[in-house]
Amino acid sequence: MAVNGRPVIDSPAADTPSAAAPFYRAVGDEVEVFRAAARRGLPVLLKGPTGCGKTRFVEAMAHELGKELVTVAGHEDMTSADLVGRFLLRGGETIWVDGPLTRAVRDGAICYLDEIVEARQDTTVVIHPLADHRRELPLDRLGTTLPAAPGFQLVISYNPGYQSVLKNIKESTRQRFVAIELDFPPADIETEIVAHEAGIDGETAGTLVTLGRAIRSLDGSPLREVSSTRMLILAGGLVAEGLSLRSAVRAAVVRVLSDDPDVVRALGELADAVLPQ
Amino acid sequence: MAVNGRPVIDSPAADTPSAAAPFYRAVGDEVEVFRAAARRGLPVLLKGPTGCGKTRFVEAMAHELGKELVTVAGHEDMTSADLVGRFLLRGGETIWVDGPLTRAVRDGAICYLDEIVEARQDTTVVIHPLADHRRELPLDRLGTTLPAAPGFQLVISYNPGYQSVLKNIKESTRQRFVAIELDFPPADIETEIVAHEAGIDGETAGTLVTLGRAIRSLDGSPLREVSSTRMLILAGGLVAEGLSLRSAVRAAVVRVLSDDPDVVRALGELADAVLPQ
Amino acid sequence: MAVNGRPVIDSPAADTPSAAAPFYRAVGDEVEVFRAAARRGLPVLLKGPTGCGKTRFVEAMAHELGKELVTVAGHEDMTSADLVGRFLLRGGETIWVDGPLTRAVRDGAICYLDEIVEARQDTTVVIHPLADHRRELPLDRLGTTLPAAPGFQLVISYNPGYQSVLKNIKESTRQRFVAIELDFPPADIETEIVAHEAGIDGETAGTLVTLGRAIRSLDGSPLREVSSTRMLILAGGLVAEGLSLRSAVRAAVVRVLSDDPDVVRALGELADAVLPQ
Amino acid sequence: MAVNGRPVIDSPAADTPSAAAPFYRAVGDEVEVFRAAARRGLPVLLKGPTGCGKTRFVEAMAHELGKELVTVAGHEDMTSADLVGRFLLRGGETIWVDGPLTRAVRDGAICYLDEIVEARQDTTVVIHPLADHRRELPLDRLGTTLPAAPGFQLVISYNPGYQSVLKNIKESTRQRFVAIELDFPPADIETEIVAHEAGIDGETAGTLVTLGRAIRSLDGSPLREVSSTRMLILAGGLVAEGLSLRSAVRAAVVRVLSDDPDVVRALGELADAVLPQ
Amino acid sequence: MAVNGRPVIDSPAADTPSAAAPFYRAVGDEVEVFRAAARRGLPVLLKGPTGCGKTRFVEAMAHELGKELVTVAGHEDMTSADLVGRFLLRGGETIWVDGPLTRAVRDGAICYLDEIVEARQDTTVVIHPLADHRRELPLDRLGTTLPAAPGFQLVISYNPGYQSVLKNIKESTRQRFVAIELDFPPADIETEIVAHEAGIDGETAGTLVTLGRAIRSLDGSPLREVSSTRMLILAGGLVAEGLSLRSAVRAAVVRVLSDDPDVVRALGELADAVLPQ
Amino acid sequence: MAVNGRPVIDSPAADTPSAAAPFYRAVGDEVEVFRAAARRGLPVLLKGPTGCGKTRFVEAMAHELGKELVTVAGHEDMTSADLVGRFLLRGGETIWVDGPLTRAVRDGAICYLDEIVEARQDTTVVIHPLADHRRELPLDRLGTTLPAAPGFQLVISYNPGYQSVLKNIKESTRQRFVAIELDFPPADIETEIVAHEAGIDGETAGTLVTLGRAIRSLDGSPLREVSSTRMLILAGGLVAEGLSLRSAVRAAVVRVLSDDPDVVRALGELADAVLPQ
Repeated sequence: MAVNGRPVIDSPAADTPSAAAPFYRAVGDEVEVFRAAARRGLPVLLKGPTGCGKTRFVEAMAHELGKELVTVAGHEDMTSADLVGRFLLRGGETIWVDGPLTRAVRDGAICYLDEIVEARQDTTVVIHPLADHRRELPLDRLGTTLPAAPGFQLVISYNPGYQSVLKNIKESTRQRFVAIELDFPPADIETEIVAHEAGIDGETAGTLVTLGRAIRSLDGSPLREVSSTRMLILAGGLVAEGLSLRSAVRAAVVRVLSDDPDVVRALGELADAVLPQ
Repeated sequence: MAVNGRPVIDSPAADTPSAAAPFYRAVGDEVEVFRAAARRGLPVLLKGPTGCGKTRFVEAMAHELGKELVTVAGHEDMTSADLVGRFLLRGGETIWVDGPLTRAVRDGAICYLDEIVEARQDTTVVIHPLADHRRELPLDRLGTTLPAAPGFQLVISYNPGYQSVLKNIKESTRQRFVAIELDFPPADIETEIVAHEAGIDGETAGTLVTLGRAIRSLDGSPLREVSSTRMLILAGGLVAEGLSLRSAVRAAVVRVLSDDPDVVRALGELADAVLPQ
Repeated sequence: MAVNGRPVIDSPAADTPSAAAPFYRAVGDEVEVFRAAARRGLPVLLKGPTGCGKTRFVEAMAHELGKELVTVAGHEDMTSADLVGRFLLRGGETIWVDGPLTRAVRDGAICYLDEIVEARQDTTVVIHPLADHRRELPLDRLGTTLPAAPGFQLVISYNPGYQSVLKNIKESTRQRFVAIELDFPPADIETEIVAHEAGIDGETAGTLVTLGRAIRSLDGSPLREVSSTRMLILAGGLVAEGLSLRSAVRAAVVRVLSDDPDVVRALGELADAVLPQ
Repeated sequence: MAVNGRPVIDSPAADTPSAAAPFYRAVGDEVEVFRAAARRGLPVLLKGPTGCGKTRFVEAMAHELGKELVTVAGHEDMTSADLVGRFLLRGGETIWVDGPLTRAVRDGAICYLDEIVEARQDTTVVIHPLADHRRELPLDRLGTTLPAAPGFQLVISYNPGYQSVLKNIKESTRQRFVAIELDFPPADIETEIVAHEAGIDGETAGTLVTLGRAIRSLDGSPLREVSSTRMLILAGGLVAEGLSLRSAVRAAVVRVLSDDPDVVRALGELADAVLPQ
Repeated sequence: MAVNGRPVIDSPAADTPSAAAPFYRAVGDEVEVFRAAARRGLPVLLKGPTGCGKTRFVEAMAHELGKELVTVAGHEDMTSADLVGRFLLRGGETIWVDGPLTRAVRDGAICYLDEIVEARQDTTVVIHPLADHRRELPLDRLGTTLPAAPGFQLVISYNPGYQSVLKNIKESTRQRFVAIELDFPPADIETEIVAHEAGIDGETAGTLVTLGRAIRSLDGSPLREVSSTRMLILAGGLVAEGLSLRSAVRAAVVRVLSDDPDVVRALGELADAVLPQ
Repeated sequence: MAVNGRPVIDSPAADTPSAAAPFYRAVGDEVEVFRAAARRGLPVLLKGPTGCGKTRFVEAMAHELGKELVTVAGHEDMTSADLVGRFLLRGGETIWVDGPLTRAVRDGAICYLDEIVEARQDTTVVIHPLADHRRELPLDRLGTTLPAAPGFQLVISYNPGYQSVLKNIKESTRQRFVAIELDFPPADIETEIVAHEAGIDGETAGTLVTLGRAIRSLDGSPLREVSSTRMLILAGGLVAEGLSLRSAVRAAVVRVLSDDPDVVRALGELADAVLPQ
């Protein structure tokens, strides 16, 4: 509703929030783009740093669109069989067990392949025909091809910060997708999120966000990843369990961000300067 | 029909267009070369950048020639068994399941191996005898050799832009093929294609094509791939779903082309300059 | 209870020590952080050098919290199947055998993955959904998902000293954890530990600790790892079996720390200087 | 018959050509060497560039000698099992299926292993005993050894142009063979071959050969392989199907030889200079 | 019994030597350390050059302690299954076959893993719980854990001379062991060993030992390994079979130590200078 | 019999030559060393260049000693299962099929592992216990250990010329062997061998040997391997089949030794200078 602010998702689900409605605060045009892609059945490529809310965004969109969500964490050894399914021997009989992607294709669900960029390239053979006008999944082992049920949508995510120097999605795959880029939200919204998710008061949440943003803006940072919203929520959760703010920040932020003693000490001093005495 | 222009395919199917006739606009001599290769049963090597219309061209030729089309997306882990087939255990019985290439050989179809260049080299053993005068497929697992049905034709594609620096088709394979090279069409034809495929008006399509061509002509471009016709169609599709032209271009073109913040910003500024205010 | 000293774990189990209570002396806030994480069901990342007491700390916490402990030693070839389980053929029937992680998830135990950082990345697929709010284990081979029983907690450990230069936990995995860092205890506590564990008198234990600390403080040390508390306990155990202190130190400390003749000689001379004549 | 010319193969089969006699024109002493090797049962190593007629030469020798010819295209993943055979499960029964090499050994055929140099080295175990005085094939899986039937002959080929910088046949394998080296034939013979194989007139064939030889003699050529006789035949075949000579040369020669735009343009200009206006 | 000399093992078995008592001459404190480790059930790490008597030492200790000895030669492809065992299909039934380590654990034997440092790291998962206070072997495939029988002891060996530059035992594994270092014995003891083992007179044995020590003391030696006691025994054995001393030394020492013609010649000249004319 | 000459093997088999007695001419002390090793049951390491007669020497010794000979050609993919055997499924039953090494161990044969240096290191596990005083073969898959029948002897060979820069036999393996080094024989003996084996007259054989020795003595030779006795025999064999000496030398020597046009030309000119005009 606001333009530069962070509008609530203006969907029926948001107006009459059910207990299960995921808590999400939009930034930019990501909701509009996702809706347009969903209406046209286009696959979505989700970019953004670790812990900025990619998964939560997909959960919120699935809820708004009334679709089931199937999530798969990608990894270097993932093959197309992990996605599609395989034959298994059970009690002397051979039965076919659908993989998560096949279940989503059958059910018209959103299939969210998290960090699929790390999977082996034989996933290409199942992604391409699902991601273009064919919208079908070849099941070679079954000798058939499964048309995607209405509503099926493919969403893949990755973190351009450190993926781009390692390996990349093939260009011919990438150009079949519509891209959405997420980043950490502005301070007021992030404070609201941390307070809500961790179950702490706004002041403590604000202190955590101030610290998180101070770390993100360090010049020439030696960190591979910066302090994410997820981390701040974890720290807040430890506070909610009675741990001191200082211990919580060291456990959920400082020691997670680095193993280097010098960096850990510098981050600790930064935390001491930000946290209330 | 025209010489330097872009003639409609002058086939009966084109004259009496059926509902299923793929929309394709020819450039250069690709249609004549494909027809001559088809008459002589020669395999075709299709070169061109991502998203320039290679797949659509093969679909159009298959339609004109009245042949079934079997498409397989190549990948690094693809083996000859993925193409030819394998034995599977089903309910205590062992049955043979044809792979897509074998089905095409049996049925006299066109088998289109998309980016086959990435497959493992044991595909050589099936491609060589199919690609020369023998026109047969050795099925070692069945202990037999399958002669190609009349009309069978092998088509392989790859993108010389980034493949040539990675791995290559073996010379002894490559020299068995007749080569066709596609590129992005001229502006007027590309505008017609984008408008038709995305379902938008010609003016909006023209704006998208102007942007696409501006990106393609950037000097010293840091992009691995340029803006393809496919991308422009995707952007047009988002516009057709009600998204603003600016959001559509960022989602389907700018953020897909690069993860680098500087490049994304520069592309965004270029888009702003081209799009109507 | 003391602040800078080393407090006894103030739990009922510690007040009324049973025969099975593991002997552990806390340093810093590790016990408080672990308790808060346990109450909130958050996974714990345990950092520290080899032999400093990581395993013993987890044993002590499991005892205090009254939970079963399942320990798995990670290695480079470990796959998710090693953690989750697999189908095995037994007497003509196919049966499923739970892996150690699945047993822990079913039973609400603590699953301690020691040096999981060395495992293959397909373990990601089981760690992610267990480590965030989902708290569930996908059992793809069974076509089902197992919710974690109340009390289940995931603990992973690694040694930042030499792991950080090899391979790392993925950032997106790491940021789901709360981190605890352990180090070798202060001299008086370490002496108490060595005497208790090895079954030797305090004076001999003190000599061993003095030597251990001297080795740890060597400048420009060529050692990959320093003398651990575990080593000192092993040396003490050999003394308890009647071996001379000099032979015990050479067998359990000097020759274990290095294969380099010059380093072994230098360490031997350092030991001679520290040990009673 | 002639010394420096190119004699017809002076065999009965050549004198009374049957419909099936492969068209081959000899150059140098290759026919005499092959005959002597065949009489003594020695294996033959065939060297020469892609598309110069190695396969056709072996077909012609097999025809002259009245032997069956079994051809296998080598590849990087080829193992000895691909050559020798394997057990397969069929309808509950396990049956052995001979590989192509085993069939040739049983039948006394010529087994032509094309570019065997790319196969994995476990092929050594089957090549060595077949290539020396033992003339036997160990079938370890069957627990037996198969003596070669009279007339069996092993022929392997490779292209020294680009293989020699990659991987090589082991010296201990290579020194068991008699070597024959083929190259592109002289202009008049090549013209005769192209005209015959493509079914075009001598003048057009001569133009194609002139172009082919011009490309082969380019100084400092950036091409990995030069224009082969096979390519010229393919170009001729497209002409026979009605394509213009210019289009045929671009499709079968220019675009096949290179993906580099500058090289393609230079080859195109060379072709324009050679082809009739 | 002597201090700097080489005492006979002072065990009952040595006092009343049976026919099966392995011939071993102790140097240093290796016997005392092994005995103390055995009493406490600690695992032993045995370091020393090739052929210095590591295997014989373990055989002697097993004999003295009255334990069965299970020896396994490590190699690069060794996996935990090679040590623990696997299911095998026999006559339609699936049976479990214990690996050598499991047999030793069941029987309370000494399991001697020779050059285990070369095995794959999944052996970690079986070594760690056997090497610390747990003394148990996880049998994941059987879904159980096997407690070590009383008397079970783990002994691993490696050669620090060339292993240390290749790959190493993980520090967290290594620090669970007590280390013993062996080297070649002094001249008089080595002469006694060579004479006894090869069955030759003391003078000839002395000549061989003089040569062996001369080779070991070469400055800037190009040899990867020096002349071992094992080699001298082999040379003595050839002499016992009637070969000349010169031929025996060349066959068992000189040509084994190097393939380099210059080194072989230099070693030969050194041998000629040492051997009687 | 002669000292520096090349004595006939002075065995009964040589005195009363049977039809099957392999033709071998000894040089140096190789026969005496092999006999002594055989009497003591020691394994033999055979070094020498390709084609110098290693295989023939082993055949001759096996004949003299009245033992069966089992030969296995090593290769990079060879595993211990290739040597020892494996279970195979036949007609619903699982049967064990001995590998060649196991057959030799059972039968008391000589097992000749040709270029075993290339095999994978898991062969270590079978070679070590066979090569030392244990003389037994662990058959882990059968859960048993097979003692070597009397007369069993292990012989391994390799070519130090190019192996030494690639990979090496492990020192701990190598030092269990007695080494014999072979080289090409002196001119008169080599002439006798070539004439006998190829079935040609002494003069032609002498010409071939002169050429072979001239190639071997080239300064700064670019050849990976020199002209072997085996090559000269192959050339002689082609002459015996009626080929001209010039063609035979080019086919069996010149073109086999190199693919480099300059080297081939230089070797051809050397051949022309040596062969009779």
